[in-house]
Amino acid sequence: MKAEIIAIGDEVLLGQIENTNAGWIARQLAREGIAVHHMSVIPDEEEAILESFNRAFRRSDATLITGGLGPTHDDLTKALFARFFDLPIVFRNDILEEVRELYRKRQLSFIETSREQANFPSGATPIRNPHGTAPGIWYEREGRVFVAMPGVPVEMRAMMVDFVLPRLVQRRHGKVTLFRTLHTVGIKEALLFEKLDNREEILQHSRLAFLPGYTGVRIRLTVEAESAEEANMRLDKAEKALRSRINPYIFGSGEEFTLEKGVGELLLRERLKLAVAESCTGGLLAKRLTDNPGSSRWFERGFVTYSNEAKHELLGVPFELIERHGAVSAEVAEAMAEGAIRNSHAQVALSITGIAGPEGGTPEKPVGLVYLGIADREGVSHQRHQFGGDRRTNRLRSVAAALVMLIDRLRPRPHVSDGQLV
Amino acid sequence: MKAEIIAIGDEVLLGQIENTNAGWIARQLAREGIAVHHMSVIPDEEEAILESFNRAFRRSDATLITGGLGPTHDDLTKALFARFFDLPIVFRNDILEEVRELYRKRQLSFIETSREQANFPSGATPIRNPHGTAPGIWYEREGRVFVAMPGVPVEMRAMMVDFVLPRLVQRRHGKVTLFRTLHTVGIKEALLFEKLDNREEILQHSRLAFLPGYTGVRIRLTVEAESAEEANMRLDKAEKALRSRINPYIFGSGEEFTLEKGVGELLLRERLKLAVAESCTGGLLAKRLTDNPGSSRWFERGFVTYSNEAKHELLGVPFELIERHGAVSAEVAEAMAEGAIRNSHAQVALSITGIAGPEGGTPEKPVGLVYLGIADREGVSHQRHQFGGDRRTNRLRSVAAALVMLIDRLRPRPHVSDGQLV
Repeated sequence: MKAEIIAIGDEVLLGQIENTNAGWIARQLAREGIAVHHMSVIPDEEEAILESFNRAFRRSDATLITGGLGPTHDDLTKALFARFFDLPIVFRNDILEEVRELYRKRQLSFIETSREQANFPSGATPIRNPHGTAPGIWYEREGRVFVAMPGVPVEMRAMMVDFVLPRLVQRRHGKVTLFRTLHTVGIKEALLFEKLDNREEILQHSRLAFLPGYTGVRIRLTVEAESAEEANMRLDKAEKALRSRINPYIFGSGEEFTLEKGVGELLLRERLKLAVAESCTGGLLAKRLTDNPGSSRWFERGFVTYSNEAKHELLGVPFELIERHGAVSAEVAEAMAEGAIRNSHAQVALSITGIAGPEGGTPEKPVGLVYLGIADREGVSHQRHQFGGDRRTNRLRSVAAALVMLIDRLRPRPHVSDGQLV
Repeated sequence: MKAEIIAIGDEVLLGQIENTNAGWIARQLAREGIAVHHMSVIPDEEEAILESFNRAFRRSDATLITGGLGPTHDDLTKALFARFFDLPIVFRNDILEEVRELYRKRQLSFIETSREQANFPSGATPIRNPHGTAPGIWYEREGRVFVAMPGVPVEMRAMMVDFVLPRLVQRRHGKVTLFRTLHTVGIKEALLFEKLDNREEILQHSRLAFLPGYTGVRIRLTVEAESAEEANMRLDKAEKALRSRINPYIFGSGEEFTLEKGVGELLLRERLKLAVAESCTGGLLAKRLTDNPGSSRWFERGFVTYSNEAKHELLGVPFELIERHGAVSAEVAEAMAEGAIRNSHAQVALSITGIAGPEGGTPEKPVGLVYLGIADREGVSHQRHQFGGDRRTNRLRSVAAALVMLIDRLRPRPHVSDGQLV
């Protein structure tokens, strides 16, 4: 079954909002073995929308559209959906009632503009919207499915989970594409590629792809098969062949896996609690760790010590140390990590201090210079990194490096001559 | 000039990585008046890639491709680029030298796989890659531009800024599309729509679009004109007409504007420093504030008080208060904000405590219940919000509501009967 995702909206084409919907939908479909073979973003323009509908209807078994379902004049999706399939628009009291009900539940007075939501293409099925007033549209013709959903993520996601996904799975036919992801830490893409040089054994079972990122390289195995059972059997064989070559570098597996989750599992297993002390990352490390539900079981507290006073008062870093070595130094990174241990109930602590940029760099300490500290009851150590010139990337890479540093402390792996480029 | 962006990569179609490149490229082009009329994502498959090249070459003046330039077997872009334009591949010693130079600079030993980067389509121009080994490809034919860049954001961005964007601006021709964004706070889309009911005066100058988000509705004005001067003149007129109707709700303008930036400017103007105390958002508020370069001038420190001990020890919240009212309560939110003032050098403090979910909810205090506190030297107050069931959304909405709360304190605006649905 081949699926396609279309986002409608000038705001995406202008880069004003990221099209996170497409990735989210793709992940849901991939988990069910439904392959997305095309994603596109098109403007709020009649001709472009109709052309994309036409192309999608010809080439895809299922077309999922997001955006352009609101009540304002720049929302064209519903009208063009109706026109493309030649469906007359009718006023549906049942939809109006649902919209009124939503207003009642939120104790708000009804706005007349919202009446427009009850105009609906005859012959199509409305999809309930528990989080907003615009219903989705489900329509089948010639064995193909056409679905339109709002662009607001929380509204689209509820419709996908409650309505669209179960129905697509029912109608799933043809080959099943399944994949599996293995997350490596501490080995670069080119070296990984060399270690897997004799790949026939893996490739006879599965396609193989590398996805390098700041925290390591993810390896994706993909299989297309007649059934989910056969696909899983072949994935098992490919994974086994892969693990026989690079197992020490594999830190986790699965689509939902993140380095932070893996860290949380390690901490739980070791019955350790973590505290973090951040300067240049300003809360990003704590945020990433607490993205995980249940992180309160292993994350104790975080210090965002942006000012020198905060470093001194919250972590006990001596002003004299900051003056002598600078706030961005190995000494201060270690003192921050030690201070986080002393001023918390955590058994292990990470610290980050650096120059994220774009300002604040000097010839001796350029933008991108970052020191990481790690402390536990036994001692403290640090790492020095020199990243690039972009603030956002420097913050992301600092957090990734701190997580890898913690993993190395908690779960030593065999030494590898690292630092290769791809 | 019409531009199109193509991302190549199964990992994007599987939702394994977000295609943030497209949005970033679009923003750079939009600033220069170059309109992106299509974005797409296609698989690592020969047929799909060639078909997309063909369609793009026919309909777009400039085509920007990302992804598939690496040295491994699933990277097809370079070979298919050459085949599509019928350019022979030649080995270029100058590219090999640049790759070797990168290895030398990073003090790493050369990997043979990287030699492949020096194979390059004859007649095309290599684009230097300061952050990696794969060069980009620039090619012009029949007045149209075709560009391929790596999918790694930092590599692509450097190529865009240093090489691609200046050359595209030189070749810019035809109509110029410019837009302007105004950010509103404290008014919902449907009500805004009603306030702008008599829109002719705005629409005669410009197209108008609404982009609702958690922090408010952004309004986008778009103009297509013969020159940048004319476009800007018409944008000025449309903005004036718009402001005459809804000025009190406009908090900022421009593509680079964010609520956090606006907050930072207000704090700087009032010479105030901010501290934050976060429980359920776990550092997200601090992270968002410190995303901004220069935030150290107005952000003093942050407390990620995930555990009750942390709330007590870092902020002085009495255990007795937590026991009586619960950690998620108006009383604790206010005590956290007051504690952040007492335990910092800030003059104003925000606090967030809530149940982000998916676990931890009870019938009395369901998932999505969030209390916000705000304190300054004069006093303290709180807000209660009941959001939905999704952890990520609850955290985002909590931060957005806290920022709006701070703005209301710093810059009072006329009261509006709020809380309308769209």
